[in-house]
Amino acid sequence: MRLTAYRKAHFNAAHRLYRPDWSDEKNEKIFGKCNNPHFHGHNYDMEIGVSGEVDPETGYLIDLKILKDIIKSEVEDALDHKNLNEEVPEFKELIPTAEHIAFVIYNKIKAKLDPKYDLEVKLYETPRNFVLYKGE
Amino acid sequence: MRLTAYRKAHFNAAHRLYRPDWSDEKNEKIFGKCNNPHFHGHNYDMEIGVSGEVDPETGYLIDLKILKDIIKSEVEDALDHKNLNEEVPEFKELIPTAEHIAFVIYNKIKAKLDPKYDLEVKLYETPRNFVLYKGE
Amino acid sequence: MRLTAYRKAHFNAAHRLYRPDWSDEKNEKIFGKCNNPHFHGHNYDMEIGVSGEVDPETGYLIDLKILKDIIKSEVEDALDHKNLNEEVPEFKELIPTAEHIAFVIYNKIKAKLDPKYDLEVKLYETPRNFVLYKGE
Amino acid sequence: MRLTAYRKAHFNAAHRLYRPDWSDEKNEKIFGKCNNPHFHGHNYDMEIGVSGEVDPETGYLIDLKILKDIIKSEVEDALDHKNLNEEVPEFKELIPTAEHIAFVIYNKIKAKLDPKYDLEVKLYETPRNFVLYKGE
Amino acid sequence: MRLTAYRKAHFNAAHRLYRPDWSDEKNEKIFGKCNNPHFHGHNYDMEIGVSGEVDPETGYLIDLKILKDIIKSEVEDALDHKNLNEEVPEFKELIPTAEHIAFVIYNKIKAKLDPKYDLEVKLYETPRNFVLYKGE
Amino acid sequence: MRLTAYRKAHFNAAHRLYRPDWSDEKNEKIFGKCNNPHFHGHNYDMEIGVSGEVDPETGYLIDLKILKDIIKSEVEDALDHKNLNEEVPEFKELIPTAEHIAFVIYNKIKAKLDPKYDLEVKLYETPRNFVLYKGE
Repeated sequence: MRLTAYRKAHFNAAHRLYRPDWSDEKNEKIFGKCNNPHFHGHNYDMEIGVSGEVDPETGYLIDLKILKDIIKSEVEDALDHKNLNEEVPEFKELIPTAEHIAFVIYNKIKAKLDPKYDLEVKLYETPRNFVLYKGE
Repeated sequence: MRLTAYRKAHFNAAHRLYRPDWSDEKNEKIFGKCNNPHFHGHNYDMEIGVSGEVDPETGYLIDLKILKDIIKSEVEDALDHKNLNEEVPEFKELIPTAEHIAFVIYNKIKAKLDPKYDLEVKLYETPRNFVLYKGE
Repeated sequence: MRLTAYRKAHFNAAHRLYRPDWSDEKNEKIFGKCNNPHFHGHNYDMEIGVSGEVDPETGYLIDLKILKDIIKSEVEDALDHKNLNEEVPEFKELIPTAEHIAFVIYNKIKAKLDPKYDLEVKLYETPRNFVLYKGE
Repeated sequence: MRLTAYRKAHFNAAHRLYRPDWSDEKNEKIFGKCNNPHFHGHNYDMEIGVSGEVDPETGYLIDLKILKDIIKSEVEDALDHKNLNEEVPEFKELIPTAEHIAFVIYNKIKAKLDPKYDLEVKLYETPRNFVLYKGE
Repeated sequence: MRLTAYRKAHFNAAHRLYRPDWSDEKNEKIFGKCNNPHFHGHNYDMEIGVSGEVDPETGYLIDLKILKDIIKSEVEDALDHKNLNEEVPEFKELIPTAEHIAFVIYNKIKAKLDPKYDLEVKLYETPRNFVLYKGE
Repeated sequence: MRLTAYRKAHFNAAHRLYRPDWSDEKNEKIFGKCNNPHFHGHNYDMEIGVSGEVDPETGYLIDLKILKDIIKSEVEDALDHKNLNEEVPEFKELIPTAEHIAFVIYNKIKAKLDPKYDLEVKLYETPRNFVLYKGE
């Protein structure tokens, strides 16, 4: 019996979309007001999905305490109330778009998760804009 | 033209996660406070998805009245305001985790649905924890 | 500058609506399926509102850490994953309707809150049924 | 790195489910109160998903301004505050069920979108009824 | 113990904002695209609040079955899947703005409700636009 | 006929809670991780409520286009994608707590609104923390 279990979580952060190797004009043209050098911010909401076989003994796909602990240590402690550009090493050379943040979250959780599970990360930058990354 | 149509529904129930063949210590260790012998409960929300070909004559994938009636008779009448462990036959020998409840709902609806349709069941145990089962 | 600050919180519990001094028929007539002797349950969502003057020095009405700690110790630890009828002393002689649960939550938080604040409790029994109690 | 980016949007419209080549009795039997000749209406909510490779230079799957402009010109300007049956050419010969509206929206957006992207359209007719069309 | 109990409900309808005693130009200027002569529509969501004293015997402010029945007969049966301008007598001479629809709903429910209760009607025309009427 | 009409709106911003006249230790003690000198951010959601008499001629409390324009020019253009501490004059000497942001939004809208209306501002800093300010 194969199934996906989801857990919602969230963090708040500041960011800026900007490439130092581009002119100010190009940054402004591509990233618009997301390029604001003083930063802006979001409440990021996540739906972390883990897929695999249900354990017939417990009826659990995964003990959610394990998943919650991974999300807390890898994502919330690392990103919550942070400036992604200034304080999060993964974004020193990676522009913190929603796409890249989902990619970073995926990799950080995947590294701690039993490899028997597949993983997917849905990341809401706002209630109207979100991305889904499945490690493809 | 292949498409999925979804219908939301919900029921409220009490449950307890517990294996009688385990010691109290093991039940407590694996199921934590969900093992409370006095039961606790949830508002379960469902998104029932039905996939198939749209009928070119009606523009419907499925007459939603048919789907609503199946959900009502098979799920709501069977589970709403019930104690899953004590009153629902499917859980006499199956621990009522969200995973197993989704499995039971899937099977109950599938048995009444025209076999030409594929089915998926998303079950929210809380707004933050949910599972998706597609019969795989 | 007077203002209300709100904090959402939630707990899951089982309950039953029942008066031992009534006949089964009367319990059934008044409380319907909420009278199920095997219990059923809900995800209760709360919006706890605290009103008063904003502190000009901090810009805070109340330090939300204080409010979160009170909600955790008085409400979540006391009610989460519990059977309200069987395990919560306040409901030994009080029917755990949404109205009474809001009343109990109000009194438990009010007793710990600085008396300079007014308090209101909005309690969702389901996303469709909820009550608001302001201590009147 | 392959990913899906989603954008929510919405429009309000009137419609009626009806086939002129059917008798009134058959229209009533199949479409029920959705067949009301005076029309009724909905707030339609959409989640438009675009899948493809993330651009390593910008960190964007797609510039959301491009997607928003397509949604505005193709969907919102065409459908918002309209009577789908009377004023939208695509529904002159197509019954405006949720299934068909999703199909029309899919085709209108797909025609304007860079063909390197895959597209999916989730359309909520009400918060409880929705469809997902992926062009299959 | 005074408290407010709320019940959510909903209906779908078509409408048009228009005054026959105004010129087309004035209707267009004041009501914009809401003036479309072919109608448009909404999913209207309501929160019906009833205030009063909790019955100490039942722990209920009001038996929600009574409130649900009133909402069904007075609001849902009267307005759901209807064209408000064409089919609902109250709007023959009253423009069906959200303000007026809330007023009509208030009066229809109030007429059937025990006069010991106060009533309030929150009506969402869209998730972003809503009104609150308390009979003042 | 007196009524309140609400309009939802939103903006994204970065901020930091900090008093320069306090030691780092005191800022840390009072504001915790909200004191991060690199800033963090939120998606702020607003419900702007306007109360008054309904115009019997139009059935409108207020033309929502007027209210939307005021919200856009006074709040969204001023605060969206901004660093509140660094770029918004009102917060040069006012700590940008949710309480103070609601106060600023209230004053900016009130100054542009016909004085016959009462105003209220509900501001969500996160979906779980919000404040309500009515100008008292």
